[in-house]
Amino acid sequence: MEDLKNVYISPLPDSPYVKPFRFNYTQNGKEKTWDLLEVHDSVAIVVFNVSRKVMIFVKQFRPAIYYNCIHPDDRELNVIDTNKYPASLGIALEMCAGIIDKNKSVEHIAQEEVLEECGYDVPLEKLQKITSYRSGVGVQGSLQTFFYCEVTDDMKTQQGGGVDDEIIDVVEKTIPEMEEMVNSPGPIPSPPSCLFALMWFLHYKADKYRK
Amino acid sequence: MEDLKNVYISPLPDSPYVKPFRFNYTQNGKEKTWDLLEVHDSVAIVVFNVSRKVMIFVKQFRPAIYYNCIHPDDRELNVIDTNKYPASLGIALEMCAGIIDKNKSVEHIAQEEVLEECGYDVPLEKLQKITSYRSGVGVQGSLQTFFYCEVTDDMKTQQGGGVDDEIIDVVEKTIPEMEEMVNSPGPIPSPPSCLFALMWFLHYKADKYRK
Repeated sequence: MEDLKNVYISPLPDSPYVKPFRFNYTQNGKEKTWDLLEVHDSVAIVVFNVSRKVMIFVKQFRPAIYYNCIHPDDRELNVIDTNKYPASLGIALEMCAGIIDKNKSVEHIAQEEVLEECGYDVPLEKLQKITSYRSGVGVQGSLQTFFYCEVTDDMKTQQGGGVDDEIIDVVEKTIPEMEEMVNSPGPIPSPPSCLFALMWFLHYKADKYRK
Repeated sequence: MEDLKNVYISPLPDSPYVKPFRFNYTQNGKEKTWDLLEVHDSVAIVVFNVSRKVMIFVKQFRPAIYYNCIHPDDRELNVIDTNKYPASLGIALEMCAGIIDKNKSVEHIAQEEVLEECGYDVPLEKLQKITSYRSGVGVQGSLQTFFYCEVTDDMKTQQGGGVDDEIIDVVEKTIPEMEEMVNSPGPIPSPPSCLFALMWFLHYKADKYRK
């Protein structure tokens, strides 16, 4: 995962992933604009293994995090120096998640992601829909649906790790390790959706599994 | 806040807010690209009023959320029909927050945002830095620093509501109202950072203020 080379920045071509545009509007009589991005809705799944009382995380290299660790002066270089900026700077710890880019129900997409990323084959009825919220309020306001799913060791039918070019490691954390993670002074290499999921689990579910 | 007119989409010009680009890299021998956005780092502040035991939220119209409520077929129209899509669809409930776009410490920027948005004049030592995390892992990986701040009614020196063109309402919620919010089936018109902050408060702070 941490073998990183030939890193450079180039202009955005016409991209299926990032579609920026300007939103124009008049609010309370004032003309305004806001620059936006069109992104897909998504699912996030909190996967807790009740056989061994561990939370299942996915770990992967995230260019967006790596880029933000590079000093602005060094971003302009032809090639980023990966000795000065090793890949480890961009490794994120997240909940299992995926975008909704297929004509399937959110439940089916969540089920697929748990299998592909984490290797657990879960029946649909084990996926408990908790709520949904906006992924962001600034440049992207897509909807993320949040599921909770308890799994057992015997549901683990494959290794996980993603499909196609994805390079994903499955990581397990005990309840004390989760508490240590959210109580760290940071920077925590995780997005707020992962921290919300962790706090939600610690507050509403963890007590049952502490002993 | 909900007087909305002349809504239309246009191409992104050269924007100081949204700078998209392509990140090119070779990971484990595989050439890859990832499309990204350069965004500012930011602060978010959980402001709890201990005089009346209420959480302070900010409410504002967010184009990114509104846009995502518009059916794809209707997004292409010259002007969006605001009778079909009223402004209320885009109203978000958030924690006090702001971007780091000045050469000041994160603590000073947090202090300024609490005053400008919420109207509370808090001494720096009341701002407790909790942690920091990545705003996102997909297109934006900027750092958000998360503060907790207890305020009293006598610190409220002005109305809040933002500066310049900002149209922001200050909203207060009791602890039972916060619990109702995070337990709603959704869509919750809030970002995950707000939900993380709420769960963090409910888990680590709320008990002290329940009676």
